[in-house]
Amino acid sequence: MSVVNKSVHPFDKSRLDALLNRRFFYAPAFEIYGGVAGLYDYGPPGSSLQANITAEWRKHFIIEDHMLELDTTIMTPAPVFETSGHVARFADWMVKDTKTGDVLRADHLVKSVLEARLAGDREARGLAAQPKDDEKDKKRKKKAKTVVVQLADELVKELESILAQLDNYSGPELGELCRKYEIRNPDTDNEVGEPQQFNLMFASSIGPTGQHPGGVEIRCPSYLRPETAQGHFLNFSRLLEFNNGRVPFASAQIGRSFRNEISPRAGLLRVREFTMGEIEHFVDPDDKSHEKFREVRDTVLSLLDRHVQVSGSTQVTQMTIGEAVDKGIVANETLGYFLVRINLFLIKIGINPKRLRFRQHMGNEMAHYATDCWDAEIENATGWTECVGCADRAAYDLSVHSARTGQPLVVRQALKEPIVTEKEVPEFNKKVLGKTYGRDAGLLQKAVGEMDESQLIRLKGELAQGSVYPPITRLHEIDGGSLYRQATISAEGKEFILTPDLLAIERKTFKQSIREFTPNVIEPSFGFGRILYTLLEHSFWCREQDIERGVLSLPPVVAPTKVLIVPLSAKEEFNPLVQEVSTKLRKAGIFSRVDDSNTSIGKRYARNDELGTPFGVTLDFASVQNRTMTLRERDTTDQLIGPIDDVITVLTELVQGTIDWPAACKRLPAYDGVQAID
Amino acid sequence: MSVVNKSVHPFDKSRLDALLNRRFFYAPAFEIYGGVAGLYDYGPPGSSLQANITAEWRKHFIIEDHMLELDTTIMTPAPVFETSGHVARFADWMVKDTKTGDVLRADHLVKSVLEARLAGDREARGLAAQPKDDEKDKKRKKKAKTVVVQLADELVKELESILAQLDNYSGPELGELCRKYEIRNPDTDNEVGEPQQFNLMFASSIGPTGQHPGGVEIRCPSYLRPETAQGHFLNFSRLLEFNNGRVPFASAQIGRSFRNEISPRAGLLRVREFTMGEIEHFVDPDDKSHEKFREVRDTVLSLLDRHVQVSGSTQVTQMTIGEAVDKGIVANETLGYFLVRINLFLIKIGINPKRLRFRQHMGNEMAHYATDCWDAEIENATGWTECVGCADRAAYDLSVHSARTGQPLVVRQALKEPIVTEKEVPEFNKKVLGKTYGRDAGLLQKAVGEMDESQLIRLKGELAQGSVYPPITRLHEIDGGSLYRQATISAEGKEFILTPDLLAIERKTFKQSIREFTPNVIEPSFGFGRILYTLLEHSFWCREQDIERGVLSLPPVVAPTKVLIVPLSAKEEFNPLVQEVSTKLRKAGIFSRVDDSNTSIGKRYARNDELGTPFGVTLDFASVQNRTMTLRERDTTDQLIGPIDDVITVLTELVQGTIDWPAACKRLPAYDGVQAID
Repeated sequence: MSVVNKSVHPFDKSRLDALLNRRFFYAPAFEIYGGVAGLYDYGPPGSSLQANITAEWRKHFIIEDHMLELDTTIMTPAPVFETSGHVARFADWMVKDTKTGDVLRADHLVKSVLEARLAGDREARGLAAQPKDDEKDKKRKKKAKTVVVQLADELVKELESILAQLDNYSGPELGELCRKYEIRNPDTDNEVGEPQQFNLMFASSIGPTGQHPGGVEIRCPSYLRPETAQGHFLNFSRLLEFNNGRVPFASAQIGRSFRNEISPRAGLLRVREFTMGEIEHFVDPDDKSHEKFREVRDTVLSLLDRHVQVSGSTQVTQMTIGEAVDKGIVANETLGYFLVRINLFLIKIGINPKRLRFRQHMGNEMAHYATDCWDAEIENATGWTECVGCADRAAYDLSVHSARTGQPLVVRQALKEPIVTEKEVPEFNKKVLGKTYGRDAGLLQKAVGEMDESQLIRLKGELAQGSVYPPITRLHEIDGGSLYRQATISAEGKEFILTPDLLAIERKTFKQSIREFTPNVIEPSFGFGRILYTLLEHSFWCREQDIERGVLSLPPVVAPTKVLIVPLSAKEEFNPLVQEVSTKLRKAGIFSRVDDSNTSIGKRYARNDELGTPFGVTLDFASVQNRTMTLRERDTTDQLIGPIDDVITVLTELVQGTIDWPAACKRLPAYDGVQAID
Repeated sequence: MSVVNKSVHPFDKSRLDALLNRRFFYAPAFEIYGGVAGLYDYGPPGSSLQANITAEWRKHFIIEDHMLELDTTIMTPAPVFETSGHVARFADWMVKDTKTGDVLRADHLVKSVLEARLAGDREARGLAAQPKDDEKDKKRKKKAKTVVVQLADELVKELESILAQLDNYSGPELGELCRKYEIRNPDTDNEVGEPQQFNLMFASSIGPTGQHPGGVEIRCPSYLRPETAQGHFLNFSRLLEFNNGRVPFASAQIGRSFRNEISPRAGLLRVREFTMGEIEHFVDPDDKSHEKFREVRDTVLSLLDRHVQVSGSTQVTQMTIGEAVDKGIVANETLGYFLVRINLFLIKIGINPKRLRFRQHMGNEMAHYATDCWDAEIENATGWTECVGCADRAAYDLSVHSARTGQPLVVRQALKEPIVTEKEVPEFNKKVLGKTYGRDAGLLQKAVGEMDESQLIRLKGELAQGSVYPPITRLHEIDGGSLYRQATISAEGKEFILTPDLLAIERKTFKQSIREFTPNVIEPSFGFGRILYTLLEHSFWCREQDIERGVLSLPPVVAPTKVLIVPLSAKEEFNPLVQEVSTKLRKAGIFSRVDDSNTSIGKRYARNDELGTPFGVTLDFASVQNRTMTLRERDTTDQLIGPIDDVITVLTELVQGTIDWPAACKRLPAYDGVQAID
């Protein structure tokens, strides 16, 4: 077997981008109309690659762990996202240049202008200029120009204080800052208008305009979902019932979501429409253990926890998930189990494990619904990119939807051991009560009913000693605040005499056999576009002998085409064999393509190396005569030869992943014919 | 093998609907918020069923015919749908009641009110009342009340003429009719406002509000696609290149589309958001033959062509597709090939072939882009429902997008035999021309350049006889209209004298080796929700002995769960076997579920009959002792027994469809143990 050096040529993103465009992995959508930023169409290899990734995801997560698959709607009426907090919080504050209409993010504007003034002040005071913002910040926004003017000491303190708490200002407060400090658009020196919210959800509306007195619907404001999660939460009760009322269980969904990003860029890494896969694992808040955790506890992950980051470091720690959970670095077994499963999935589809890490969110960066979150980050040419989030959303979503709709979104669990409790229970003789106190009976009942255990025991003792004569003032003392509200009635001078024939207090036994709780949610959330792009980066290299010959080393499990069938030419004599091989492969469940185009075999293989096709078989005159076929491996370009059916058997095992190429080389003789290279 | 009578109990839609809701096949979306008409969420069995249907669709169409799969965006900028005609024509005209805000469809309102007046007139004249509209119409709209008033003869004719051409009126014209004839909302007698278009596309917009002088984008009006087709057309050039420049080829896409239906109803049959599968087969307009047509030409289809319908009949004809194409009933082989493939697909997933027909669109019912269209209609409780459309969109879409964007969307085909043509070519001697006519030379060149072949030959002859003296008037005669535009110049008295040294006319040979054409498109378009619902109807029946025991006889290929594993109880002693069987089935590619819930085996089977699970295996004490397992078939409830591995082998073949139940009965002995029935 040949040894291949894939890193002779350093990675060149422009070469990869050109390949992906040329081979139509994906392309800007509406390109012939000039395109729209952040929208991409996937061509044949890109959509196959994505379909294979999601199919493997379905197997790896849904089927393996018996998750309940869902397919919910994208179009969502506004009240759902009002409740979930997305209408209020899934937004940025923006200001408009009053003359040009330029749109600026309000907090970025304030930060940029005030920082420039402070820098000017420092320069005027002859202090060293502040160290520059890091690379990332520079790319992200225009900087305001620094003017060297010394500011009053008072003002400097004021501005520094504003900058330290910038994330806490509301939109109107940002507007006030702009007016107070005369903050203008640094590009034009024009004033800016009042901050307006720019929500990242796409808005639409359902139904015809108008109102119908008969109750037929009116136009209903709606949004395109920015995540699939709400569809799971709203169906929680049905899912729970489907699972026979038991937790833990997980629902899962693959679907399209939408975010109206203000300035999408970076190809597939920040887009406005994307396919995501989300799992919502519903779990008892008091028991986040996972029954399969012991199967994964020895798996080593690259972890970057929040404490390390807060201390200013990005040093990753290699640690078994068992140790991480034991030490409390990862909060619980369920979260830990999913981190391992995510890790395994990404490596299985071809992500380089050395460029994969799990980074914990710091306190101030978490989404409004999360209580803990780890991102699977994958390194690519633009840096470390979040490709999977794994958040503990706690009971947030189910609680808010339940409160808004009045529908209980809870688990009612039969307790294995009923909880038995004893307590004192007051019982009035209704007849005596009515006769003695008439309309005031309720007042007395309420007072006694509000007594706690110790008060009831004291009263019981007093009753045992005969009658009690607690005037209202006495009840006050016993019951504290609650009877205080009845003070107006006591002003009427009402007195209550309690006797054993009026009131009995007895100790009774209670059995609680049902426990009711709102489950917590652990949510692994996958952005397939980002995973797909980083996978392409990790798979790309150029042949040592020719930098123009790019290769995508996609694993067979996700490669768009598994096998290329290459007849020597398009001549009819090869057709029966091409048909035969193609049909046999299809029956073995292997997706092949025929390339009988009018060009050399070498060129056809080179084209399919760019498409990531892992294997190729060549049918030539020897095949027609002897029923043999050569088998080529993409990365090494090694070729084997054997009877057609033997080659198909080996191919099937290679594609299914039960053997690798070195094993295949032991099963079939090497082919030493010269490979046609153009 | 037992014989089962599935039609003892007549089909009862309410029972099916209850089952589908109870087992969470699908449910109204946002149910806990009160729901939104026309939006449904698929639960675990529904989404599995849909995923299995689309997976089979991918195999049956995309893989079988090597189609190019695409995945394009839903969010689409407005210009695309302006060009495609959807902004103008994918809409209804509506009017609002000026007081209540009620929304009415303008053409329905005019029709209803004018018909009522004519009916009143006829009654006043003592003529028989017009026969009532058919059932369908009655359900669809509110009728205006008939008032018995005789109208002027003139007016009656006017109104009748309006009604006859109602479909031709534009929105403003409908508004004029409302004013002229004082047409009011019949429910309230209020006036109605100006007609407004209600487009069936959901509108949204992309990007932040504002303008950027630097060219950064502004808010861009957009729509959610009502079909996936435009995504194929816009990528045509890339697809063609991917296919090495050759037609025919087909692209295919599975994806979500949206239609803002005014009053959705009928469950999954008319919804606002749906998953569709579309194929765009690009073909030479001059050659719509299909290379695989001969493989299907003997397939018999149920056809209902447009002539039969126009004659007032709905009598279906059984005919081979070969005969239908030969007779011109189905326009071409490609269309015919797809009708057969659609037929095959629907039957494969479980549609009853007796309730499936292909109906041709009549001239006036076709979409604006179609030149011919056949619908696969499936009968269900609400009637015959279009589930697949198969339209010939001709060159419509590619032509309009090309015209709008200036991008050529054409095939350039190397001709096998170059087309050789000869023609007369005029050639001026530039030097002589300039010297003789100076600035007027262009005028002369243009006049000669616009001559046709016969004119050139005549001129050539005249030149051969020496010089020619054609005054402007003479050129007029030769060249007709085109020189007419030069009349102002001729007014200057310009005269052109042609001589052989000035102009030579020679016969030259031209070779055309490239043919350029806009391909036509044959489009099979599938609504998966409608197919899924009708499949559920066709699969549903109730057991003879108990109408409460519903069964869904879904074929294994689409059944959400293929095998139910039923341990006698949840006791731990069964766990190892459950694990073993479950793992072995998974390795064989079969999706199983374990039901170890705390209820009788009979009840568990009954529950899974409702979910359409075709097979069940029971693990009991005999399994633990002897490693045997029983195998149950859903429809017959027959049980077989055998060693665990033998049962798994038989099961695998059953699920893959290589054997059927009668064959399985020959492979394993019947189990005569009594089945636990609750």
